[in-house]
Amino acid sequence: MVETDICIVGAGPVGLFAVFEAGLLKMRCHLVDTLPQVGGQLSEIYPKKPIYDIPGYPEIKAEELVRKLQEQIEPFKPTFTLGDRVEALTKDDKGFVLTTSQGTEIQSKVIVIAGGLGCFEPRKPDLDQLGYFEGNGVDYMVRDPEKFRNKKLLIAGGGDSALDWTIYLADVAKHVTLVHRNESFRGSPDSAEKVSGLAKAGKINVLMGTDLLKLHGNGALKSVSVSNKDGLIKEIETDHMILLFGLSPKLGPVGTWGLNLNRNAIEVSTLDYSTNIERIYAIGDMNTYPGKLKLILSGFHEAALMAQSAFKYVHPDQKLSLKYTTVSGVHAF
Amino acid sequence: MVETDICIVGAGPVGLFAVFEAGLLKMRCHLVDTLPQVGGQLSEIYPKKPIYDIPGYPEIKAEELVRKLQEQIEPFKPTFTLGDRVEALTKDDKGFVLTTSQGTEIQSKVIVIAGGLGCFEPRKPDLDQLGYFEGNGVDYMVRDPEKFRNKKLLIAGGGDSALDWTIYLADVAKHVTLVHRNESFRGSPDSAEKVSGLAKAGKINVLMGTDLLKLHGNGALKSVSVSNKDGLIKEIETDHMILLFGLSPKLGPVGTWGLNLNRNAIEVSTLDYSTNIERIYAIGDMNTYPGKLKLILSGFHEAALMAQSAFKYVHPDQKLSLKYTTVSGVHAF
Repeated sequence: MVETDICIVGAGPVGLFAVFEAGLLKMRCHLVDTLPQVGGQLSEIYPKKPIYDIPGYPEIKAEELVRKLQEQIEPFKPTFTLGDRVEALTKDDKGFVLTTSQGTEIQSKVIVIAGGLGCFEPRKPDLDQLGYFEGNGVDYMVRDPEKFRNKKLLIAGGGDSALDWTIYLADVAKHVTLVHRNESFRGSPDSAEKVSGLAKAGKINVLMGTDLLKLHGNGALKSVSVSNKDGLIKEIETDHMILLFGLSPKLGPVGTWGLNLNRNAIEVSTLDYSTNIERIYAIGDMNTYPGKLKLILSGFHEAALMAQSAFKYVHPDQKLSLKYTTVSGVHAF
Repeated sequence: MVETDICIVGAGPVGLFAVFEAGLLKMRCHLVDTLPQVGGQLSEIYPKKPIYDIPGYPEIKAEELVRKLQEQIEPFKPTFTLGDRVEALTKDDKGFVLTTSQGTEIQSKVIVIAGGLGCFEPRKPDLDQLGYFEGNGVDYMVRDPEKFRNKKLLIAGGGDSALDWTIYLADVAKHVTLVHRNESFRGSPDSAEKVSGLAKAGKINVLMGTDLLKLHGNGALKSVSVSNKDGLIKEIETDHMILLFGLSPKLGPVGTWGLNLNRNAIEVSTLDYSTNIERIYAIGDMNTYPGKLKLILSGFHEAALMAQSAFKYVHPDQKLSLKYTTVSGVHAF
């Protein structure tokens, strides 16, 4: 059984920074995340993308922000359960016991839900044998672009993710074909223009108004049949197909804990970002309140106010006073 | 007459970041500050001190954070009136006209008060001829430590500011004497220990339980008389005396504008950090609401929500949608 002061559900940027704010007040944290690494969306969906709206960083790559946050919380020695999912919640006399899918038990005085988009799942098209080729040529996200170096690649989708990866991978893969079912892209005009430019220059193939029909291959993907609106069928040889139809956010098991919900988000008070269940807080993209913006910088603020409020449950016998790090620095345990 | 979308009163870190959030929504900003440079307390009081609680920066010097924020808002070309103070507020059909002490008029659709500590003033001891020596040997803050290189220096005070500058200037000045009226320091135990260490090593003089009596000099400061609790008087030769008795925050003229106040702070709604006067917002250390923490990172969050709300006054004919910089980047005007 893991014992901790605060169990943070979600190890994205906001969950990580919550360790810092808790640590300043001498509260220990354990983080649980379904993903195999920390950083949430930043590591999983757009590690190489620059972010421009982190205060004090005119530009920072998503993966670099995650690295900086890890460094910032290092003095507070957080512990982790990664690649596992929090399922059941029970109350006990010290607070809660959480149980994960894989059976790990975590006893905690306070729970902070920092689940971001939730247990998000890629949207999948309705195609025969799709499951058979998953991991054998079919991907739903780009974790490591190097995987596609000098490979034949088919990308499907018409949003920003499909456009941006097409642009990026055009220089990495041997050849890229972009397939989109509609006649225009949903992504930003700027990216759409770049993709058109690459197609005109003969660097990539773009097939608009085109549907995916059938996957071929024995063990590994070999080719994909597609058809245009006139019913013309074409078979495209490819080593990999990346399906970028977006992610479908799911609240996951925390949705069953009796928390007040509003449109797939957890209602909280702006006083301290507490939920309707005492000792449970929700911060970052998974909460909602009047005026809520789904910005990382708002999650940071929410983490600070949460920590001040959670203190009374973790150290009920101590008086809390706000300390400034410019005066006292950062002291670990 | 300066014309702008948003007039920001205060050019500290939160006022600066508000330019970024406003700029993303195509709103232009003009900033007014009583100080001669941007950065507020960070530039004026502790430029060389490290800050540890800016998310994503395990450690950053205050002046470096200001530099980064300036770089971040540069694309939005903010304009400034520095070394001047906003005094009178009048309404006009476009919003407001603000008048500064020096007579500059600023017409603005929205006002954002980001005044931090306010028009703070150093606390001064009751000493004859103090005014006479101000600027001629007597200082109330350290703007440029180099000013004191190889000079004889007397520092008075017992808080963190006095301790930290004593430690820092011990290596810069020819000689440092620290005078404190009480028998123990108010500052952090860690700094107090360092100061004792320097005194024991003979690098500085520390006089506890000692009061300032009288300043001597003709034109420039030459020496200061002090007395201990037993009435023993001593004259200390010095080139400079730095009085670090803290700052006394003053709300300044904005306190007369009819805003709802609570303990020297401006009451705002957590929905959008608006005040009781339409089109006037307050963000950062100068506002108050249930749960308020005086943290820079909270001011950043408040700036983001303010900008979303102010949009309707600046672009009443346009529809607002939240854009993510990871998707669309930062576009200047």
